[in-house]
Amino acid sequence: MKEVRTIVLSKSVFEENDKEADALRLFLKDKGVFLVNVMSSPGAGKTTTLIALINKLSKFLRVGIMEADIDSDVDAIKVAKETGCKSIQLHTGGMCHLDAGMTTQGLMELGLEDLDLVFLENVGNLVCPAEYDTGAHLDMMILSVPEGDDKPLKYPLIFQKCELVLINKIDTLPYFNFSMENVRRNISYRNKNATVIPISAKKGDGIDDVVEFFKRKTNK
Amino acid sequence: MKEVRTIVLSKSVFEENDKEADALRLFLKDKGVFLVNVMSSPGAGKTTTLIALINKLSKFLRVGIMEADIDSDVDAIKVAKETGCKSIQLHTGGMCHLDAGMTTQGLMELGLEDLDLVFLENVGNLVCPAEYDTGAHLDMMILSVPEGDDKPLKYPLIFQKCELVLINKIDTLPYFNFSMENVRRNISYRNKNATVIPISAKKGDGIDDVVEFFKRKTNK
Repeated sequence: MKEVRTIVLSKSVFEENDKEADALRLFLKDKGVFLVNVMSSPGAGKTTTLIALINKLSKFLRVGIMEADIDSDVDAIKVAKETGCKSIQLHTGGMCHLDAGMTTQGLMELGLEDLDLVFLENVGNLVCPAEYDTGAHLDMMILSVPEGDDKPLKYPLIFQKCELVLINKIDTLPYFNFSMENVRRNISYRNKNATVIPISAKKGDGIDDVVEFFKRKTNK
Repeated sequence: MKEVRTIVLSKSVFEENDKEADALRLFLKDKGVFLVNVMSSPGAGKTTTLIALINKLSKFLRVGIMEADIDSDVDAIKVAKETGCKSIQLHTGGMCHLDAGMTTQGLMELGLEDLDLVFLENVGNLVCPAEYDTGAHLDMMILSVPEGDDKPLKYPLIFQKCELVLINKIDTLPYFNFSMENVRRNISYRNKNATVIPISAKKGDGIDDVVEFFKRKTNK
């Protein structure tokens, strides 16, 4: 297993986050790197999903990952161990979200050479991360079955912002009062253009559909 | 069913939230009202737990509830309908947490007459709500089994701050890789004095233990 580095992020020195995010997006495009911002509640399965996804995507794309957490290095170590991909841990110093400046610091430490696609695993939170443009080319989120099919009604912004919504833990559908029809309607109410893919990261269901989505997005 | 009022909260005008929180706590003590701040991830079961709890607690205490949400009134309507208790919806206007000023606005609208205990259901978020003292006499949180037993490692502050931690959805333990022993150890690592009570709000398991906890806390 490779060593996993941890860097402590300082607050962005730039006030105008949106401009900085646009600049980062252009810079990455020029470098041929596609950046994906991954958001969800705590425990929705971001890390497990990314491991399952990266293990399949790596056949087509060179993938790197940045794991943001308030504290703890468990995710970066786990992903590096289980996928072998280039991985770095970001500590947000108590911050509940990442902005474009923090994302840039992370990318500079990760290094962009030999990468086609970078996942940024944001802090587990359905509110604040959605308010800050990280400079990603694509915002995606994971909603898990145990959280309930009403979440798009309660957390509007994140659903408005995400082009891709994965519904995770579908293997637990028999044990929860969760309707795929309701959740699709509630997501569509917030964002008509969102792509919704049901998955079970644990069992592997639906991961191939997500792989196809990213192959299309990156033209590979 | 009674009508449920919705009020839109404005940002607190006081900069010094901690002082305002202390003042609110004293004011409420003088009025004989015990305020409980309830925090969790989205979908951990705050509303379902509070309904089950209030239906039993109401035999001993006069209970009111404030439901904070970024958007949507579904929780306040549901609680009022299923418990008959005094209920109000707070809209945070996109804010990811409540501070003492917002809590005060809510309490003034709710009215404190004839109440012994008020639950404040905070915005679903494990990060920001823990950073702001609401003026409550007790901070509690709900962690649900599907979220995972590692959450105290990843979200330190909320576990440090909460005197009571309910582990919800224990009826789903067979379907998740969640160890009660691990979660108790991880909680204790953040806060040795936390009371941990396993419950299933849906099935009713453990609710009587939570009722006893609040009877002790309020000397009823």
